[in-house]
Amino acid sequence: MAGYPDSVRIREVGPRDGFQNEPEVIATADKVRLIEMLIAAGLKRIEVTSFVRADVIPQLADGPEVLGALERPDGVAFSVLIPNERGLENALRHRAGFDEISVFLSASETHNRKNVNRSIEESLTGLERVLETARAEGLRCEGVIATSFGCPYEGEVPSERVQAIAERLIAAGCAEIGFGDTTGMANPLQVDGFYARMTAALAGDGGPELTAHFHNTRGQGIANAVAALGRGIASFESSFGELGGCPVPAGSTGNIASEDLVSLLHEMGIETGVDLGGLLAASREVQSVLGRPLGAHLLTAGPVDWGGGGA
Amino acid sequence: MAGYPDSVRIREVGPRDGFQNEPEVIATADKVRLIEMLIAAGLKRIEVTSFVRADVIPQLADGPEVLGALERPDGVAFSVLIPNERGLENALRHRAGFDEISVFLSASETHNRKNVNRSIEESLTGLERVLETARAEGLRCEGVIATSFGCPYEGEVPSERVQAIAERLIAAGCAEIGFGDTTGMANPLQVDGFYARMTAALAGDGGPELTAHFHNTRGQGIANAVAALGRGIASFESSFGELGGCPVPAGSTGNIASEDLVSLLHEMGIETGVDLGGLLAASREVQSVLGRPLGAHLLTAGPVDWGGGGA
Repeated sequence: MAGYPDSVRIREVGPRDGFQNEPEVIATADKVRLIEMLIAAGLKRIEVTSFVRADVIPQLADGPEVLGALERPDGVAFSVLIPNERGLENALRHRAGFDEISVFLSASETHNRKNVNRSIEESLTGLERVLETARAEGLRCEGVIATSFGCPYEGEVPSERVQAIAERLIAAGCAEIGFGDTTGMANPLQVDGFYARMTAALAGDGGPELTAHFHNTRGQGIANAVAALGRGIASFESSFGELGGCPVPAGSTGNIASEDLVSLLHEMGIETGVDLGGLLAASREVQSVLGRPLGAHLLTAGPVDWGGGGA
Repeated sequence: MAGYPDSVRIREVGPRDGFQNEPEVIATADKVRLIEMLIAAGLKRIEVTSFVRADVIPQLADGPEVLGALERPDGVAFSVLIPNERGLENALRHRAGFDEISVFLSASETHNRKNVNRSIEESLTGLERVLETARAEGLRCEGVIATSFGCPYEGEVPSERVQAIAERLIAAGCAEIGFGDTTGMANPLQVDGFYARMTAALAGDGGPELTAHFHNTRGQGIANAVAALGRGIASFESSFGELGGCPVPAGSTGNIASEDLVSLLHEMGIETGVDLGGLLAASREVQSVLGRPLGAHLLTAGPVDWGGGGA
């Protein structure tokens, strides 16, 4: 085990990954206000929207309007999710609105086919074209590998396969690789071995940033984040309020909650640059917009008060 | 860090710690049926009830009836919570029904006074008398130290103080010390250092069993359990369904969920002797009795299916 990092970068994915799972379309003005609150809370990386087909995900059809309405302060990076070549083409019409793209595929053939109706090889070939164009546009690129820790359809996903996909994405220009535990199958022992392998194989001077994207499907998301921290991983993706979900298993929760992650990190003496109070304000606001209580524990418990005045 | 243990003992505290927090009194027959399901699921340690004053906790006024109705198979230990001398006196009228007692106090003066209206020293003096009598009756004794990892009223709780209390309880005959994170203030880094200290100071040949009792107040309960495991801790307390709660902070969740803990342990290759399917059946049954969904993640997600047939 390496020591824990002194500071950690968090990409807030709620506005894309979270909103995408909401059945009722959220008003563009609400989205913009919520993202402004996240920026005010000190989040420096925000996945703002996705350029998917509007008929596939109507919730994110207003991506251009959201990007157009937002001010982007110095030091804040907006990313957009790009599913394929056509998605990038559409996104580039709004090139001024964002800094980074995320592309994705699954390490499981079955999951990839169910998700994007392509084989892994077909996905990689398409994404290589996407990444070439994006880099020529000066965009920083993250490659996200879903089901990196297990697949609900195939079971175990060999980490050699995940590594080989990561190497293809890195060769195609990804500055960052995100490993997704898409249906919450990872455990801390597995995560420890996984990141030992990936840091040895992929990191180092000039290597890509390695990012952890855990789901809290089985209540282990935060424990898995600690295991990744123990291997020196200093980049995480999470969702305010614990927004997000996953159809497999039915009704499951999705991403780990940003406020639960930030609280953990601060309690462990690891800096995030995030103001937990501001983040909780954004989460309370999204609860109010959605009209239902969300799963983040900090929303009920509040921050730890070591002064003892909290009770 | 020590290695993880190969197997772990779990005390199911839902029938006492969980039920106690339920506002509506649960029928005795329901309690008995639920405990029978927990036994059938392979749980070998069950905190069945408490001998507190019936006017203070009406929910547990039927403790003698519950104990009287239950068969106790070989290898299964029932424990009862004993608040004070009078509680033990009442419990001993039903001596045939249980094997172990748990006594408790808080490591925080303020929390102890609010909880039992005694100073720590007054509590210790009373518990020493309780433990002397209980040992003479052949009962195994656990001493639970609440707010071991922090107090909502006092903030930090020095681990020297926790250790000193543990030493008094051990000297008075406790075979087991449970360290409670009563309002979920612990973090994995703190837990690692805490158990490094406690195992060095208290464990070893003839030393007491050291038990971890975490709450999931801030979503870190399972991560804290992993940190304790990393220090070789092999005894945990948890609650089926994630039953339980805590008035501070208001509305907070309580104990970590037994099924989330068991799933974690099995995924990490650590034996528990518990049949996860049977445990989930008990949790679904208590959901049905209480008429509301409970917080355990496994209740929604189900076990990890590495065969890939779960989706």
